[in-house]
Amino acid sequence: MVQRNRAEIDFGINYSPFNIPASVLQRVKVTQNAVSTYPSPHSENNLTLLSKYLALRKDNVLLLNGSSEGFFILPQACKFKKSTVITPTFWEYAHTLSLHNVQINYLNLLPSFSLNLADLEENLRKSDSVYICNPNNPTSSHIKKDILAFLISKFKNKIFVVDETYLLFSKNYRKETLNQLAAHINNLFVVTSLSKFFSIGGVRLGFCVSSRENIDLIRKFKNPYSTNIFAEQLLPLLFKSSGYIKKTREFLDAEKDRVYGMVARLPWLTPFKPSANFVLVKIEDPKVELKSLLTYLEKRGVRVRSGTEFKGLSNRYFRFCVRTRKENDSLIKSLKDFYTISSSRNS
Amino acid sequence: MVQRNRAEIDFGINYSPFNIPASVLQRVKVTQNAVSTYPSPHSENNLTLLSKYLALRKDNVLLLNGSSEGFFILPQACKFKKSTVITPTFWEYAHTLSLHNVQINYLNLLPSFSLNLADLEENLRKSDSVYICNPNNPTSSHIKKDILAFLISKFKNKIFVVDETYLLFSKNYRKETLNQLAAHINNLFVVTSLSKFFSIGGVRLGFCVSSRENIDLIRKFKNPYSTNIFAEQLLPLLFKSSGYIKKTREFLDAEKDRVYGMVARLPWLTPFKPSANFVLVKIEDPKVELKSLLTYLEKRGVRVRSGTEFKGLSNRYFRFCVRTRKENDSLIKSLKDFYTISSSRNS
Repeated sequence: MVQRNRAEIDFGINYSPFNIPASVLQRVKVTQNAVSTYPSPHSENNLTLLSKYLALRKDNVLLLNGSSEGFFILPQACKFKKSTVITPTFWEYAHTLSLHNVQINYLNLLPSFSLNLADLEENLRKSDSVYICNPNNPTSSHIKKDILAFLISKFKNKIFVVDETYLLFSKNYRKETLNQLAAHINNLFVVTSLSKFFSIGGVRLGFCVSSRENIDLIRKFKNPYSTNIFAEQLLPLLFKSSGYIKKTREFLDAEKDRVYGMVARLPWLTPFKPSANFVLVKIEDPKVELKSLLTYLEKRGVRVRSGTEFKGLSNRYFRFCVRTRKENDSLIKSLKDFYTISSSRNS
Repeated sequence: MVQRNRAEIDFGINYSPFNIPASVLQRVKVTQNAVSTYPSPHSENNLTLLSKYLALRKDNVLLLNGSSEGFFILPQACKFKKSTVITPTFWEYAHTLSLHNVQINYLNLLPSFSLNLADLEENLRKSDSVYICNPNNPTSSHIKKDILAFLISKFKNKIFVVDETYLLFSKNYRKETLNQLAAHINNLFVVTSLSKFFSIGGVRLGFCVSSRENIDLIRKFKNPYSTNIFAEQLLPLLFKSSGYIKKTREFLDAEKDRVYGMVARLPWLTPFKPSANFVLVKIEDPKVELKSLLTYLEKRGVRVRSGTEFKGLSNRYFRFCVRTRKENDSLIKSLKDFYTISSSRNS
């Protein structure tokens, strides 16, 4: 029997700390009729509701099998030749670009992880496109909307791909999202995964917003039946869960800063100020090895994400997700205990 | 209240006449744990079971989000330049090839729908690849295994893509499938959808078999999380449903010939001898219009597939799926009634 305090708490996956209401899942039915019904082409049955939620027209939105489907399609449809990717970031941008022999101009944000606009502009001049995760995974840094809008307007012949998966966690989502802008110009795709905000990575849901011409283009490259029938059943229920959406956003708005503050008080660690529902941390004490830390945490049933999993990071970094208050407190306690034990060994 | 005899019977979709056992669907759970669990990358959790069922090694099989995912990937991965497509056939081959600017050499089987080997060989010499649906949709014709094996061996530098979705319905599936051959040579991909045989178009499941090198290649182009968690739950249960598999194959083996015989006795129609679970029919009476027939059938709650939906066919053809004995008898009765009414109007 696994003891309660040994149960695994996964700070490694950037999920919401809360569950969507059980009543929502109960309404997804695995019946003969459901499994034998083909999804509507390009999940068009759900477009009305989703586009209404986003305050957009239907022809500016494409439903996706997770944001991944969008990233696999974009290089095919847009035929990028040279693309800027800001690192460290989500691995799929570079992976899907390299499948289509796109030359990647990496722009590394180390050591401060703050974006130098001049650097980005210089890099952009050598590229036909740029991928920006905003807020960025794993740094949890955020580029303000007006800066992005300025760049997008200045570089009209460059395609901007902005991943707003983690912006969904923001109280200011509706103000900060570029969805509205994307619908009205021709050089911006906004891609958003629903997996993280609703903790539904198994369901496969995401969406892309762009001009009608751009959506028409990428829709052609999409398998029209890629979204399964359970995802079709679930999607409208998710966006009607306004209680869940509000609670998650309000809780994280305060809690991410509380957790950041607690880590900042540990002298051997430097957290980076989070804009999203996760925190990137640098190990400052040269005597502390990430591997030992991960092993220790794992023994306590706590999982975080190693910096070695990201190009442009290293084994001096780890990332953890902001979970419930109690879970976050237990993570901080584990970190403190680890350092006490490891310091006594080293001394 | 819809009357029983008005309930719609869908002969338009090439599904099995039977349902998978209800106990199978009951074991697919929509729980918090399920939806929040990412599918295993490339559905690797299911590979052991599926490859065992197919008597293949795991590295010769790739799980797919329906066969469609395979067709969207193949032109990207194999970089075809000129491809032979035998028409009439499933629309997705030409569609996915055209997305990547592959020149398509069509080989039209009209009027007999039997394949002339010399024609195919001549066409193949002008192509680097060929798509063969076997049995073919919508003709229900079948190319024998030894003929295909001969061609594949003779044209070693041409890539053969063989769609065996409807071979799953055959009593001789294990004898007739090219899966074993595909695992051992370098110029054959066998793609199979599970949607039709198990009537699960909403779930999104299919697979591809080829050499290890070929599978490694196409796996790179695949979204590793394209298969949803419910499909992952369902797949092992499907292949353990040996009663369903056997019953479906044995029933259709006899029933398709019985239905063919009944249509053959109608003087105004010519059915083509079916190898799969559906029958293509030509309207021989020039006074009969397909549109009137479809309208009449629809009023009787019966849906069939119009020949106009296939490139290389026309409004002189329709396709219907073989369903249960009672349903098939009711289709034949509707066809007879239609002709009686329409003849009396025309005389």
